[in-house]
This record gives sequence, C-alpha cells and structure tokens, in this order.
Amino acid sequence: MKKVTINEAAELLRAQDNILLLTHVRPDGDTMGSASALCYSLRLAGKTAYLYNNPQFEDNYPWIAAPYLAPEGFAPSYIVAVDLADETLFPKGFDGDVDFCVDHHPSNTGYAKHTLVWPNKASCGEVIMELAKALSGRLDATIADLLYIAVSTDTGCFVYGNTTGETLSAGAELCQAGARNAVLNKILFRTSSRARIALEALLMSSFRYYDDGRIVISVISKELLDEVGATEKDCADIAALPGRVEGTVASAVIKEIDPTHCKISVRTTGLVNANKVCARFGGGGHQMASGCIMDKNCFEAADILAGAIGEQLK
Amino acid sequence: MKKVTINEAAELLRAQDNILLLTHVRPDGDTMGSASALCYSLRLAGKTAYLYNNPQFEDNYPWIAAPYLAPEGFAPSYIVAVDLADETLFPKGFDGDVDFCVDHHPSNTGYAKHTLVWPNKASCGEVIMELAKALSGRLDATIADLLYIAVSTDTGCFVYGNTTGETLSAGAELCQAGARNAVLNKILFRTSSRARIALEALLMSSFRYYDDGRIVISVISKELLDEVGATEKDCADIAALPGRVEGTVASAVIKEIDPTHCKISVRTTGLVNANKVCARFGGGGHQMASGCIMDKNCFEAADILAGAIGEQLK
Repeated sequence: MKKVTINEAAELLRAQDNILLLTHVRPDGDTMGSASALCYSLRLAGKTAYLYNNPQFEDNYPWIAAPYLAPEGFAPSYIVAVDLADETLFPKGFDGDVDFCVDHHPSNTGYAKHTLVWPNKASCGEVIMELAKALSGRLDATIADLLYIAVSTDTGCFVYGNTTGETLSAGAELCQAGARNAVLNKILFRTSSRARIALEALLMSSFRYYDDGRIVISVISKELLDEVGATEKDCADIAALPGRVEGTVASAVIKEIDPTHCKISVRTTGLVNANKVCARFGGGGHQMASGCIMDKNCFEAADILAGAIGEQLK
Repeated sequence: MKKVTINEAAELLRAQDNILLLTHVRPDGDTMGSASALCYSLRLAGKTAYLYNNPQFEDNYPWIAAPYLAPEGFAPSYIVAVDLADETLFPKGFDGDVDFCVDHHPSNTGYAKHTLVWPNKASCGEVIMELAKALSGRLDATIADLLYIAVSTDTGCFVYGNTTGETLSAGAELCQAGARNAVLNKILFRTSSRARIALEALLMSSFRYYDDGRIVISVISKELLDEVGATEKDCADIAALPGRVEGTVASAVIKEIDPTHCKISVRTTGLVNANKVCARFGGGGHQMASGCIMDKNCFEAADILAGAIGEQLK
C-alpha cells in the first residue's frame, strides 16, 4: 500500500480508464454521494466510469446513485473504493482487488494499492471535493449537490460532534457552487414516512437505561418493525436517537438481523471510545461513532454491550 | 424611523452609554445569543450595557444571558431592541420607546428611532456578527459562542429552509473564531429531558391530518403536558416536529395557554405563506415560519387554522 496526496491521486486517475467505483455495504449518504460525485468528475475528465451496482442502494436513497450505475457486462480495468474502511465492508457480491481507495476513516486498513485517507475530515465528501477540484479545477451544481449529500448526511446536517469549522466551510462552498441545500435538507433530514414517525415514537417509549442513565440502548426487533409497518428504509440514520437523552455519554441502536445476529451502532460523546468498544466485537469506525455485528440475540446483545461500555466508564 | 447601515449603527452605539438591550417575548436562542453578544461587544468598546431582565429567560437557556442581566435600579439612557419585529413582542414588563432596533424579520414595523434590518439573513446573529466586527474589529471565542447559539438555533443547526451558503459561511467563521460548536450542538440540539422524549413520542402518535395529509397539526394541551410531566422548557423548538411527516406542505404546533387561548406556530415548505396565514389571526413572522395567538380552545383552533391554510392550497 502506498499513501498518495490529492495531486498524486488526480494523476493516478487521469492515467486510467474504465473505472469502477465501490461503495460500502449498507450504503449511507456519504459513500453514495461521494462515489457518485467522483464518478461524475471522472466523466467530466473524459473517462468511462460507473458505480458498482450495490444491491443495497434501494434501502437508502436510490436516486443519488441512479445516473451512475454500471450497465450489465461492464468490464472495468481500474477499481476505486470510496469511503470504504476495510474489506469486510465491500458491497455484497464484490470480491476482488482494489487499486485505489479514497476515505476518511482513521480505521482504514490500507487494503488498496494506493490510498488517500484524511482522517480529520467529518465526511469522505470533503476529500472527494478536493479531489474533484484537482481533477477538473472547479465544482458545478451537479457535483455540489452530490457532495452536499455526502457532507451533510455524515454530520447529521452539521450537528454531530465531527463537524468543524472546515466542515461548515465546505458546506458553504458547496452552496455557493449551486448545491440546493434547502431542498436536499428537506428530503434528507426533515421528511419521515408515517411508519418512521411511529417507529421513533415506539423506540422513544422503550429506551433501555444502564449505569444510572449514562448508557441508553434502543433495540429494534423484527417484531417491533412489523408492529409499526416499518422496513429497512425507515431505519436510516436512527443510530443517533437514544443519544439525545439528557445525561447520556454512550448510546447504541441494536437491530435484529435474525434471532442470533444483530447489527450494532454505537454513538458516544467522546468520554467512551466507540471504536474500541466495537473492536471487541470485530467492528470499528470512529472515536464517537462505530459499529459491529454481534452473534447474539438483540436483547441479550444490549446487556453485553452495556457491560463493555460500562468497563470504559469505570 | 430612519434606516441605518452597519457603520452608521456602530457610530450610533459608540456615541451612547448606559445601554439596555431588549430581547423578545418567549425568548429563543437567536434573540438571547444576539443580545448577549451585542452586550459583550459594547462592554469591550468600554460601554456600560445590560440586558433587560426578560422574565421568560428561565424557560429557555438562562445560562446564555446570565452574565449580562441588568442589576436592580439600572437607569438606561439608550434602549436597543434585538431580533424584535414589533412592539407586541416586547418582553413582559417593558413599556417604553426604543432608540435603535437591530433585526432580520421582514415584518419589522420600524417602531424604533433607528433601525438596522437585514431581511435576507437567517438569524439576527448574522447581523450582530457584522455589527460586532464594526464595533471592535474582531470576534473572540466568547462572542463566537454567543453568535453561534444565535445562528444555529434560528436554523435548527443549518437544516431549516432559511439556511444559505452565507449562513454556513457565518457558522464556519464563528467556529474559526473559537465557537465550541460540538459542545453547543450537543446541549442545544442533541440533549432532551426524559419528559421531552416522552412528549415527542406522545405527539408523534397523535398528529392531526388535514387535506390528505398535506397539513399536519399537533396540539399540546395542558393535560398532555401533565401526562408526561413536561413543562414549558420541554417544549422549546417543538414547532418543526409535525412538518417532518412525508407529504406535508404546512404544519403547525398549537399550544394551550388556557381553555380559550392558544399559541400557534406555523411552518411551511414555501407553497403556503405562513406570514399571511398568521396575519389573519393578528400574528406574523416569515414566509415559512410564523406565529400567532388565537382566542380559541386549542382543539377548535386546529380546525380553524387548517381551514385558513387550506384556502391557500386551493
């Protein structure tokens, strides 16, 4: 693995063609917006470029990636991973070597031949913004929208603890380049299905408190989803919900995958290292936001996780 | 009334001393942060300046204004209103002439001798930011925190439709000047009492839908508040809640004052003019966010308001 600068990365990409861009499993706005923006930027630079058809795009906002999906039979000669920290996060169905990786996760394992990681950025979108400028010299309204989606979704619209003056400055630059922030905010942050509203109401009535309320855990069982008629789509970005309760220093949302597996998202105020907690269960991410899969029943997992977090609080 | 520029406003203030700053009734983060920031800035410029002791500061975040409250017996010789659109919004107990008004409401009635209104700004904080720079030449960390509170609370942390590239740029400048955005965001936007969580859960289970769901109204009766043990404090900034439902073009929160009076906050996507709707009932504000008081029972008011909004949708 060789680390590269923005300009070296731009040179690397300019020398290639027939480029396939990968997003991570359970794609969020950052990986989708970032990969779509890089794809658009590469096309402006005269390249043939497509996104790997991540089968989970449908669970999020499929319209983000729709114009960039690879057609049947596309044979790439260069693979670029975007916002993809390690090989366990490859999108479903992909198995192969990655030529270049652009990311912002400090936990990036350096699995690609060339890597550009800026661990101080709140979103991968901010790295892509600089890369796109190095590739084409400017930002237009199309790429500004895509990058705004990336930056805003990874920061909960500039509210999460990862937001810095630089993040706000990137947001300002994107709006000045034509990003329709008001329209996008309404869609991304201020529109919920009736099922999502019902789901939140039910979760907020059933938080599990540990350690005198310093740890709050919300469990989303399949039964509960059925009760309110909610699907995977209605659960997007729900990880921040229990962390809202006054006095919380660490929170988690645990989602049942099946009776013996669950997906866990941990959020902390910084007093607890979420990355370390999740690493104990084979996961990882950032200091204040991490995830893992546990081979346990979702309710049992809540107690185990609370114990692991509690150890850090001692 | 005479309109003044930023530099004229700074001159005007430099020529005065013993200045009393007014915030509006039912004070929010913008009026409190803006007035406190201006007070701090005037003190840096060598003036004696205090905030009028708005009796409703206690309902919001009293720590914002605490260091700036006027002592018993302070006799001001110059009165400045901050973020205060008209005389009906004077803080409880104040009755007098206003020398200077700094504001961002398009509906400002020009009741002060001198007025500085920038109607395109999302928050009054952005006007105060420029005024403070004109007064003292720079922003320090204390004023940056106060102005960050103002800008962020009036935009729901950069998510509401009033947020522009300029707003984000102001946020970036404040963070670069030392505003502790992560700490403040956690307090202002990501911390809710257990009573607030219970209140939201209950409201989200009881939305009232009109016009095929294009209008969503939430009614907060005193009985409902009692049921979850919530007080006035737990209701801060709850006006945006029903607007989250998919398909909503106008929403409102109606709060019971007593059995025959209620306070109404209307939010719209722009298709409905909230200012016009509220003006029919003697209120006003902005195109997409306005308020009024109705001399009706809160449940009856919901139907009347839905009718008034519905007329605009025809």
